[in-house]
Amino acid sequence: MAIDRQSLIAMVSDFGAIDNYVGVMKGVIFNLFSGGQIADITHQIPPQNVRAAQFALATAVDYFPVGTVFLAVVDPGVGTTRRAIALRTERYQFIGPDNGLFSTVLQRHRAIAAVQLDNPIYWRSPDPSATFHGRDIFAPAAAHLAAGVPLENLGTAIAPETLTQLTPPTPTPMDQGGWLGEIQYVDRFGNLVTTFPGDWVGDRPWAIDLDIPERKSIAGGQTYGDTEPGALIALVG
Amino acid sequence: MAIDRQSLIAMVSDFGAIDNYVGVMKGVIFNLFSGGQIADITHQIPPQNVRAAQFALATAVDYFPVGTVFLAVVDPGVGTTRRAIALRTERYQFIGPDNGLFSTVLQRHRAIAAVQLDNPIYWRSPDPSATFHGRDIFAPAAAHLAAGVPLENLGTAIAPETLTQLTPPTPTPMDQGGWLGEIQYVDRFGNLVTTFPGDWVGDRPWAIDLDIPERKSIAGGQTYGDTEPGALIALVG
Amino acid sequence: MAIDRQSLIAMVSDFGAIDNYVGVMKGVIFNLFSGGQIADITHQIPPQNVRAAQFALATAVDYFPVGTVFLAVVDPGVGTTRRAIALRTERYQFIGPDNGLFSTVLQRHRAIAAVQLDNPIYWRSPDPSATFHGRDIFAPAAAHLAAGVPLENLGTAIAPETLTQLTPPTPTPMDQGGWLGEIQYVDRFGNLVTTFPGDWVGDRPWAIDLDIPERKSIAGGQTYGDTEPGALIALVG
Repeated sequence: MAIDRQSLIAMVSDFGAIDNYVGVMKGVIFNLFSGGQIADITHQIPPQNVRAAQFALATAVDYFPVGTVFLAVVDPGVGTTRRAIALRTERYQFIGPDNGLFSTVLQRHRAIAAVQLDNPIYWRSPDPSATFHGRDIFAPAAAHLAAGVPLENLGTAIAPETLTQLTPPTPTPMDQGGWLGEIQYVDRFGNLVTTFPGDWVGDRPWAIDLDIPERKSIAGGQTYGDTEPGALIALVG
Repeated sequence: MAIDRQSLIAMVSDFGAIDNYVGVMKGVIFNLFSGGQIADITHQIPPQNVRAAQFALATAVDYFPVGTVFLAVVDPGVGTTRRAIALRTERYQFIGPDNGLFSTVLQRHRAIAAVQLDNPIYWRSPDPSATFHGRDIFAPAAAHLAAGVPLENLGTAIAPETLTQLTPPTPTPMDQGGWLGEIQYVDRFGNLVTTFPGDWVGDRPWAIDLDIPERKSIAGGQTYGDTEPGALIALVG
Repeated sequence: MAIDRQSLIAMVSDFGAIDNYVGVMKGVIFNLFSGGQIADITHQIPPQNVRAAQFALATAVDYFPVGTVFLAVVDPGVGTTRRAIALRTERYQFIGPDNGLFSTVLQRHRAIAAVQLDNPIYWRSPDPSATFHGRDIFAPAAAHLAAGVPLENLGTAIAPETLTQLTPPTPTPMDQGGWLGEIQYVDRFGNLVTTFPGDWVGDRPWAIDLDIPERKSIAGGQTYGDTEPGALIALVG
């Protein structure tokens, strides 16, 4: 196995902080693996927004130690026939529903094994609820992986190329020159994250034209300090 | 003692995430017991809402490992004569104000010992503040229990049957047939949690009539997938 | 060195809970120091509000164990020439931007050493981003300190008396007698935290006159229970 033994579980979900759902999942994890260590990436994904979740996950993964188990639960199809899966890459393992949550991750990290979580021995109980697989299937799977259970034990092998992939939002060339991209995320500070790759920016002056609602050209800079307070600036993040 | 040694403290409070109150309690815990492990159940209980807190606590408890210390602080009576207590059941220990926070827990787990937290040796200082017993009395008590101090040391024994109990909201029979229940909780996803026990639902068709504000009948199903997106469904959770 | 070895990192930031920034910083910390333990003080400081952050930090510090590393990132000047620093007091170590974040802390705890974080060996990579020093400079520094790296290794020594200090808000005497203070904080429960020191209150009756917007006198008491529900009371906290 290519992964060093690690006991860290990093969580992404849309369960929020008001309900006790995240706490319940942590109870399940500690119940199965008292030596586990848990890091929250975020639980404030907009409800059922798989695209936002896969962005939050993909942009966090590479900062975590080799061997981390990522437990991602944004699951509008819970209780339907969507597959519950675990997958392994060279550096990490991932648990969650097969609904595209791992799209960008899989573009950067090749899946070398994947299983459907259909072995009830590793569920919390043989009779999981129809509405909370995070508690009954996914959290137990993450705890078992972090505790060292081989991924292959958790269920039937599936071909990595059958995993659900969302179409990535990529810039397209425009007739009048330049490229058309999208805002894919707005953060707490009002930063707009675009779909333009950072390495497109070279040493020449550059700018982004925003159409919200009227066109506004924003010059590229190096740091927030390159502009006046209150003014707009385009940066590589 | 019936409880395995455990170092996990699970917290419920109404302290929110904006102020530093929860962080301060964690500092106090780690100060007294550096080997402690903390899991947040939720800190977003509506301010001073004991009924919501006891629901969030009671529906999370059974997922945690045997030996977990639950630290629950929703405490509108802080500084008055309400008792500060610790109690032990067959599987768990609980710390908090004696205001009904443990009502549902105590219906499911028989208290086998309880004390009033009146031994100042186990407070943070002999002169606790009048407004923040979470920091000065409850968090220290939880740290001591998790570190292995016997509950009996923390103060004067009290009879478990004197612990404050809130009246549970139970369905009542209606003249025209059927039962009248209540919505006891609305979660982040818009799920309405009723007071009807899940095991009342058998194999026959069933439905819930909601009066908010006009009557609407909601058919029972098995999973969210049994209905159209946007339509209502009644499930056993 | 005056500090016991400790592996606890306590975090304050304005990164909120919606974005994955805090999770990314935790990934960086665990990547560098898998034995670290992290406690969140709060991440809900109003964006870029250094004064609020230094208040939340200063009022939490003393509850944490000796040796705790405080990682504070509220950093409107990120990417400009403001210094990135680490400092050590008799009991604790602190990491963050030199923008006044440690003002009140430094009034209570004398700095005995300080460095500018200019040694790239201890950055996450030799080419830190211009917008997220929390991830690339501060979190790595905190992980290294918690893992036992001497503060002096992290960069060039600086004189503690050159650290940026915000003017503390202190009460001033009024012509008509009494003192004029300010509300410095409003918490989740509606408590107004004033700039009056708690030890100004003795055994005689006392009151605070509030001008918001018309004058209202609020009598001092001992606990919330000293007044009627819904009425106002002044307490020492």
